[in-house]
Amino acid sequence: MRTITWNTEAQCLTYIDQTRLPAELVTVETQSVTRLADGIRRLEVRGAPALGIAGGYGVALSCFSHQNEKAGQAFCHAVETDAAFLRATRPTAVNLGWGINRVLQTALPEETPEAAFDAALREAQAIEEEDIALCHRIGANGATLLPDTCTVLTHCNAGALACVEWGTALGVIRSAVEAGKNISVLSCETRPLNQGSRLTAYELQADGIPVKTIPDSAAAHLMRRGMIDAVIVGADRITPDAVFNKIGTYMHAVCADHHKIPFYVAAPYSTLDLSQTEADITIEERARNELAICGDRQLMPDGVDVVNPAFDATPLSLVTAIITDKGIFRQPYSELAKQDERVEP
Amino acid sequence: MRTITWNTEAQCLTYIDQTRLPAELVTVETQSVTRLADGIRRLEVRGAPALGIAGGYGVALSCFSHQNEKAGQAFCHAVETDAAFLRATRPTAVNLGWGINRVLQTALPEETPEAAFDAALREAQAIEEEDIALCHRIGANGATLLPDTCTVLTHCNAGALACVEWGTALGVIRSAVEAGKNISVLSCETRPLNQGSRLTAYELQADGIPVKTIPDSAAAHLMRRGMIDAVIVGADRITPDAVFNKIGTYMHAVCADHHKIPFYVAAPYSTLDLSQTEADITIEERARNELAICGDRQLMPDGVDVVNPAFDATPLSLVTAIITDKGIFRQPYSELAKQDERVEP
Repeated sequence: MRTITWNTEAQCLTYIDQTRLPAELVTVETQSVTRLADGIRRLEVRGAPALGIAGGYGVALSCFSHQNEKAGQAFCHAVETDAAFLRATRPTAVNLGWGINRVLQTALPEETPEAAFDAALREAQAIEEEDIALCHRIGANGATLLPDTCTVLTHCNAGALACVEWGTALGVIRSAVEAGKNISVLSCETRPLNQGSRLTAYELQADGIPVKTIPDSAAAHLMRRGMIDAVIVGADRITPDAVFNKIGTYMHAVCADHHKIPFYVAAPYSTLDLSQTEADITIEERARNELAICGDRQLMPDGVDVVNPAFDATPLSLVTAIITDKGIFRQPYSELAKQDERVEP
Repeated sequence: MRTITWNTEAQCLTYIDQTRLPAELVTVETQSVTRLADGIRRLEVRGAPALGIAGGYGVALSCFSHQNEKAGQAFCHAVETDAAFLRATRPTAVNLGWGINRVLQTALPEETPEAAFDAALREAQAIEEEDIALCHRIGANGATLLPDTCTVLTHCNAGALACVEWGTALGVIRSAVEAGKNISVLSCETRPLNQGSRLTAYELQADGIPVKTIPDSAAAHLMRRGMIDAVIVGADRITPDAVFNKIGTYMHAVCADHHKIPFYVAAPYSTLDLSQTEADITIEERARNELAICGDRQLMPDGVDVVNPAFDATPLSLVTAIITDKGIFRQPYSELAKQDERVEP
């Protein structure tokens, strides 16, 4: 089952509502850009690569919904307005804007709204197919780094549910298992939205890969007790100086460094943003209720505020290697930019 | 309002049920050792100093309940059996056993069960009164370490609710505020039971001390951004080589060290256990449901297991200072043991 895809019969976007897992597996079917934007904001669809695909399909949905009502400049303006609206839902992840821009650039030059929709849909579907292939390349590249028997710590969900299938960080684990390695996973629950306990545990269990959940704050303790051999996480954006990923990633990197445990980042090469540096990037601040309420439980007194950043930045000096579909990059990461020059603009 | 005390009119123990905060302020009144043991296990009463007092009162309750049914050896045996039962509820905190033993040693030599109950009650009440005085001494000692204006990170709840009033780590903050210092607190929510967001935020808000809640995993990120000037936590046991405290403490210590931020432990001198070392101490493993369920929400798929240690051990090399009622101890902590020789056995 794909995390996100186009339903050609119903002519709509369909994706797994990740806020309902693991209690229920529910899919959302929508033709509405507003509904998709809301779903992205609510993290029904989340994970850097999946956001790139969602952004691409969002442009296709926009073309679809405007094709019978507008044409020419007015059509382009309406689609670009929708694109800006979608782009603003999650400011930190690079992939969302990347997917939106890639599909916009393909669709808008077309002669008619109908042709624009066709082109947008084809391009979004191409991103979806590419994601599957590149996750397998990331997996194959990264699997070589893991010992034959080891326990890997991961944070948040950089798995099939963050992509279309296979995953980035979990793709490395899946490829290592497929290669016959004996991998156990410790999944940090990943407060406040528990992507680790809800999603990573769910999809690894489904694949029969041994997984246990731990509180985020227990990772350092387990490192000290020799129970963690490597850390692998995904990334939402990689600048030449830092990896942006789910809040808590930096803490694991500092603690892995302290315990001389390798710390790996696995991400599509498209996650790289070499035009900016850490200081340029806005870290999304999420709502108070994520920390104050869980189900029917009140976890904080009324009137107390929170600091709830969605992401943190890990300086590359703490990252042992970045595993991409274009190969493995290592300290001092000078090859990252060189590789970029070989990529089509 | 005291966290735990004896109700002389009703001849029963009364304590705040901390599992119900911050939604409701409910007190438990009980004459039953079994009920108290269950309350300790469920963390209705928790926090190292409060557990010492609860243990003391537990022995008093035991004497009270056996005084009319048993005498002599049978009475002593019944009380000692209850004491062992209480002691086993939380294996890691030193104070629980310390409070139990102190009251046992006072009560059991008495001639009659009635005299034993009187002595036990007086001794438990003495521990309660001493706790208030020593928290104020800890506070006064520690307040000198904080800058006039600063933001302090704390983890879990080492406040009034962990003691009788004032608190240890939060006692230092309260004393600093009382001395005119301008202190803001970042309270880590402290998964999985959220003592930081539920209890620390609650009692600091009640005192008008500025407090915000953060996910445990955000602390390192905020340290890196220069938003934390010091870390203060409590302790459940201090051996000559390590501080045992709520899971996550070690992670904060590693990250504070990485960022050159002072890391303080505030605890009664009775928290010291100089007869053992880290390797001797069993770290309590808590139930799966603490991570799997929150209110009516399922946070993990069925069949996935957890690693859920209640505590971790922070080597003293990462601790800037230990603030006690007997003064401030610093690296290399050789004075800790010397001070011990001056204490009554």
